[in-house]
Amino acid sequence: MRLKDLGERALLRKLAPLGYPLEAPLPPGDDAGGVWVGEAAWLLKTDGFLYREVALLGMGPFEVGFRGVAATASDLLVKMGRPLGFTLGLFLPPELEEAFALGLVQGAAEAAGRLGAPLLGGDTNAGEEVALTVSGFALSHAPLPRRARPGDLLFLAGDRWGRVGAAILAHYRGRSLEGFPEIRQAAFYPLPRLELLALSGLLRGGLDSSDGLAETLWQLSELGVRVDLEALPLYPDVLAFAGGEDEALELVLYGGEEFEAVLVVPPEAEGAVLARAEAVGLPLFRAGRVGEGEGVYLRGRPVLRRGYDHFRP
Amino acid sequence: MRLKDLGERALLRKLAPLGYPLEAPLPPGDDAGGVWVGEAAWLLKTDGFLYREVALLGMGPFEVGFRGVAATASDLLVKMGRPLGFTLGLFLPPELEEAFALGLVQGAAEAAGRLGAPLLGGDTNAGEEVALTVSGFALSHAPLPRRARPGDLLFLAGDRWGRVGAAILAHYRGRSLEGFPEIRQAAFYPLPRLELLALSGLLRGGLDSSDGLAETLWQLSELGVRVDLEALPLYPDVLAFAGGEDEALELVLYGGEEFEAVLVVPPEAEGAVLARAEAVGLPLFRAGRVGEGEGVYLRGRPVLRRGYDHFRP
Repeated sequence: MRLKDLGERALLRKLAPLGYPLEAPLPPGDDAGGVWVGEAAWLLKTDGFLYREVALLGMGPFEVGFRGVAATASDLLVKMGRPLGFTLGLFLPPELEEAFALGLVQGAAEAAGRLGAPLLGGDTNAGEEVALTVSGFALSHAPLPRRARPGDLLFLAGDRWGRVGAAILAHYRGRSLEGFPEIRQAAFYPLPRLELLALSGLLRGGLDSSDGLAETLWQLSELGVRVDLEALPLYPDVLAFAGGEDEALELVLYGGEEFEAVLVVPPEAEGAVLARAEAVGLPLFRAGRVGEGEGVYLRGRPVLRRGYDHFRP
Repeated sequence: MRLKDLGERALLRKLAPLGYPLEAPLPPGDDAGGVWVGEAAWLLKTDGFLYREVALLGMGPFEVGFRGVAATASDLLVKMGRPLGFTLGLFLPPELEEAFALGLVQGAAEAAGRLGAPLLGGDTNAGEEVALTVSGFALSHAPLPRRARPGDLLFLAGDRWGRVGAAILAHYRGRSLEGFPEIRQAAFYPLPRLELLALSGLLRGGLDSSDGLAETLWQLSELGVRVDLEALPLYPDVLAFAGGEDEALELVLYGGEEFEAVLVVPPEAEGAVLARAEAVGLPLFRAGRVGEGEGVYLRGRPVLRRGYDHFRP
């Protein structure tokens, strides 16, 4: 069967277990892989992408390099891993200007630096188009899988919900982001949050949101639970950009690329989670709860699954 | 300036220091990067390549996946890092058959497994042609840089010297490898050697040979020394394949992709190195010595530098 018929999720389900260790800190197919070394979990994550698929109008190589490290770091952080370093694998056309390549790496170094982690080199190859693969490793003393139990609460961390979706929409519609600085900032410099680590040990589970919130919640429900959303964050600028609440909800649910975290919180830990998040300045939005059953619902109505598939765009 | 005018080495020299930490276990531009965590060095390495550039006649996705992990592992091992896990970043055309993608990952898992390390997942993306980026991390208690001092001895580890070069030549000339099982094995399944770790603490320096032996020795000489080769390993099958000693030497010097190690040994450590290598069954060939000055010589005659440049093939 061809990949375009199989689809990306089915392919990943087949590939993820190959060679994956039995007694790993995180199961195959989680946001990052890892091994135990003594009491510590060492996590490794790789994320690749084509330049043209992620460069929104106005973004340059610096922003795309920044985005690359952000994507990998987001997966590590939501697993409660503190990033220790990143590498870049670059495919670059020989006709490319040197300044472009330098910009990519400078942007990656900027994101890494803001996360307190170095760039540790990488590799360059000639390729027909610009493609990046960012890898990162991290240390965790309490690695957090994708996990939920009925009764748990759902929180959304960060403040990029809907904003990156708005920027993506602006890109495809040719709309300007002038007057929407927070939308532009969220899409151009989506720095994952080291503050998540303050919640280590308090959470039931965590998922990176980069496939879009709806898709992420569907993946959560596939673990054997029902997801009931009671509310979603609707920021004034997203509402103003979208022109209405339904349109804004669409951006929150189907945006993607936020590099924010979906957190599953045991009800008895809610107070401690909120207190620690406030102490470190991590925005948390209580979005709903986990129940028995299956599927994803927003105030009782089903949330459609419309994820992005690289092989069936 | 365009990359094809700048060249790969000059580009890497500019990129390697960006964001690289000052107090790292290995300098920027070495075979792998790393950070100290307590007393241990944690190494991270990424190596990418296009399928069509490395798939020799008769190789399939399994062999290319195997080769990918081998390339990354070789860099880690020559730095005296024990590999702990690998990830794959795959760019795959949507028209590709699923079995092809599975073969790539199965080959990678096979190489990783033989090195005692798991695959820890990865990422798939659509791309115009098949490209792989393999990352790996490793733990080292005595990370070994590229380093040499006048008076040091040069050893070549392993037994793939000239053999991979022969297989590459066979590929481009359309020659069969029938009757040359060790040449085929060296090119198709170039497993790096865990046995190198037995030499940890005894060596002055080490370099991965994947750019070709001559190029690797030129990179060593750029550290400020002269390299004097006194002999090179000429295996009977390589001699038979090449048809003459000059032709065989050419394959040893300019083959590349051996994923073997060039080791720099302080003269006082030679006995201990040979004893430990014999104890673990690691083939070592004494090729020459390091002196004051510059350049690379074989029995007094200059060895030309003819490295491969991805941006100026």
